[in-house]
Amino acid sequence: MITFIDELKRLLSEDRVTVNETVLEQHSRDESYHQPSLPDVVIFPKSADEVSAVLKFANENDIPVIAFGLGSSLEGHVIPQHGGISMDTSLMNSVLEIRERDFLVKVQPGVTRSQLNKELKKYGLFFSVDPGADATLGGMAATNASGTTSVRYGIMRDNVRDLEVVLANGDIIHTGSLATKSSSGLHLNGLFIGSEGTLGVFTELTLKVYGIPEVTMAGRATFPSVEQAVEAVNGIMLAGIPIARIELVDALSIKQVNRSINTSFEEKPTLFLEFHGNEAGLNQDVAFAREIVADQGCKDIQFETDSIARSELWSARHNLAYSFIHSSPGKKLMVTDASVPLDRLTAAILDTRKKVDASSIEGAIVGHVGDGNYHVMFMIDLKNAEEVSEAKRLNEEIVNYALNAGGTCTGEHGVGIGKAKYQRLEHGKAYDVMAGIKNTLDPKGILNPGKIFTEETLITQ
Amino acid sequence: MITFIDELKRLLSEDRVTVNETVLEQHSRDESYHQPSLPDVVIFPKSADEVSAVLKFANENDIPVIAFGLGSSLEGHVIPQHGGISMDTSLMNSVLEIRERDFLVKVQPGVTRSQLNKELKKYGLFFSVDPGADATLGGMAATNASGTTSVRYGIMRDNVRDLEVVLANGDIIHTGSLATKSSSGLHLNGLFIGSEGTLGVFTELTLKVYGIPEVTMAGRATFPSVEQAVEAVNGIMLAGIPIARIELVDALSIKQVNRSINTSFEEKPTLFLEFHGNEAGLNQDVAFAREIVADQGCKDIQFETDSIARSELWSARHNLAYSFIHSSPGKKLMVTDASVPLDRLTAAILDTRKKVDASSIEGAIVGHVGDGNYHVMFMIDLKNAEEVSEAKRLNEEIVNYALNAGGTCTGEHGVGIGKAKYQRLEHGKAYDVMAGIKNTLDPKGILNPGKIFTEETLITQ
Repeated sequence: MITFIDELKRLLSEDRVTVNETVLEQHSRDESYHQPSLPDVVIFPKSADEVSAVLKFANENDIPVIAFGLGSSLEGHVIPQHGGISMDTSLMNSVLEIRERDFLVKVQPGVTRSQLNKELKKYGLFFSVDPGADATLGGMAATNASGTTSVRYGIMRDNVRDLEVVLANGDIIHTGSLATKSSSGLHLNGLFIGSEGTLGVFTELTLKVYGIPEVTMAGRATFPSVEQAVEAVNGIMLAGIPIARIELVDALSIKQVNRSINTSFEEKPTLFLEFHGNEAGLNQDVAFAREIVADQGCKDIQFETDSIARSELWSARHNLAYSFIHSSPGKKLMVTDASVPLDRLTAAILDTRKKVDASSIEGAIVGHVGDGNYHVMFMIDLKNAEEVSEAKRLNEEIVNYALNAGGTCTGEHGVGIGKAKYQRLEHGKAYDVMAGIKNTLDPKGILNPGKIFTEETLITQ
Repeated sequence: MITFIDELKRLLSEDRVTVNETVLEQHSRDESYHQPSLPDVVIFPKSADEVSAVLKFANENDIPVIAFGLGSSLEGHVIPQHGGISMDTSLMNSVLEIRERDFLVKVQPGVTRSQLNKELKKYGLFFSVDPGADATLGGMAATNASGTTSVRYGIMRDNVRDLEVVLANGDIIHTGSLATKSSSGLHLNGLFIGSEGTLGVFTELTLKVYGIPEVTMAGRATFPSVEQAVEAVNGIMLAGIPIARIELVDALSIKQVNRSINTSFEEKPTLFLEFHGNEAGLNQDVAFAREIVADQGCKDIQFETDSIARSELWSARHNLAYSFIHSSPGKKLMVTDASVPLDRLTAAILDTRKKVDASSIEGAIVGHVGDGNYHVMFMIDLKNAEEVSEAKRLNEEIVNYALNAGGTCTGEHGVGIGKAKYQRLEHGKAYDVMAGIKNTLDPKGILNPGKIFTEETLITQ
């Protein structure tokens, strides 16, 4: 009998189809606390045609297909809950074309953010979306990632011009064009970005890039209270200062940074800021921002323009999640990801801090506060039932608070497994519309089953 | 026998349902050259609930429903080709809420752009999207309008945070939330914007607004050739100058302006520019831009910061289409709307000029050149078969050129009737995905039939 694995070997090649235990295990999990689950097989396609052949075959034979980038997702997106094929894009990792005068670059989905930026630097360009992790661009588009720069340059959805996508039936489509703007047809581009592998598999991405700014200045400002730090953010936004990054890191997180990388930052609520612009404009912006933070009780603000000093200043913020993970062996990271309208942010963060303090577990708060998006990082011992249930309870309360404020359960991590249960509450009848689209594009439900949509949602359609 | 018009009167009220000939005629056309067609009835709903009741009724009885804003569309979007109900949103014209600290405003669909900006000014805010016409915001979202400011502030799709939409079955959904960013669920917001009334009727819009910039400076620069003007645009974009508007107006258009509003602008290819920013940054930007335009042979550049002088400078550009219309009695406006990647723009515009010059009709070229989007305006006599066919031939050639360059058949006007025939060519198999979504959401095809989708596309699904 020919097994489906033999058939995959015929469609790709012997050496790019594996059931090796270690490889299966690597593709059974992401960086989150969600329960791992092994795929039946891991494959490494090299082209859209190969992806198409595999999807056509999987669709005819009802085999789940889960696209896999680097596994840096935070809500279990790449976990093969129902087994099947984990489709690893790491061999599709070429930067295909840099169109510098169009501010566009064409890449394969397995290219990582840092790999792309290294290439772009030669042209004086950069790709703006920076979620912290050095994720693949395919994965970042699949989850609609964002991060520290989106307050100025937008989220993944704002920076993907076109996708080549293979559908469940093997059809290969393009969701956009190379035009800067278009009113032609329905906007599939935005629909597929953030679809988490449930509507198709991305095989090529055309991304918008930017010129490296004339001057970049990074700053760190400490405040007497979280409230004052967030008020300073509101002040900067209301003043219309085109800030490039503005990040809140609370006292507990700074303590963790000091412990982990041996620094001696003042252990107080801190804003990390970055300004991009021409020299004259930036100096005026910085002077204005200094006044605003001083009004909120900030006595200590330090700026760096030198690129090494800047990158040191930011490394503390960027490595925070990893520093928690490494200092808590045996524990797993749970990160909340609520986002609220800007005016509700102060109250949301204060409420969160109160809830966490009243609970039996520790949680550090960081936030992309210019976007109203904030995270609580919990390190939890999955064998400790009380700790797990406490973290889940807090996560749920934070989600409910955000939804009541007109916000969202996930600002940037995506739905995956962890936020599927909040979709009905957040989207109401719109969730049925989403499920209708899912059913139309993937009638057999082979594409990343269990993510975004629960089985019940799709059946009751 | 109760007619369906009686039923509509029962659902709304007697005085908001009319078959008056003049009103029917007003709702039979837009500002384009497309053939008018009368609706059976025009209704004026006041709430989402009324819209829902009407749609439920229309869906059960297979009656076409066409949402109508002000009729300023340019591709026949609001023409009831198959009769039915023209649903006029002019009584839903309230600014519902201004959330200044969230940079959000909630409006009903019949609010016009200028009405909103008048309200916002009191708060030091403005809504950025400016398509020239004083369209309704519902109509602008339906066509994914943009215009002169999108090079800096984005298109309609970038500036709508949430829509309340009534679906064909009467369900009322929200497509987004108030959160600045979200990775929750499929992105319905982007899908419905630009759907031209084919997926649902908008009953409320939450829009992103901006602080009025500290300084605004407008400029007008003339060039020896169109080529040099477009090269100057590329230079400004490549320099990373955050230009707020940059518009090309060719010599023929300037001539029209002079004739129409009695000015004496030099009749040469002209760029209209606008800079927004803080004073120091803006001055540095302007100085840099001066060097770039001088390198392209511009000897004459004039700047205005005073708001009246600025608005006079821009009025020439803004009223151009109307000035063509008013100076050509008995003729109708046909505007092409191709958009190409930035690097192909010079060649595209030169090619277009050559084709128009070689034809038997006159055409003026203007362009949102920072976005690669350009228009040729033809004034055509619909009774002159040769003139009509010549304009259509040119339109088609311009579309084909743009598609070959990786661009789009419509940068901002939308598909409507006029661009439906290019959808298959532009989108390939993705057009089937769009049709699948249309069929899922509107299985009986009552919503604005004949727009975006041809009947054949939907039937072959």
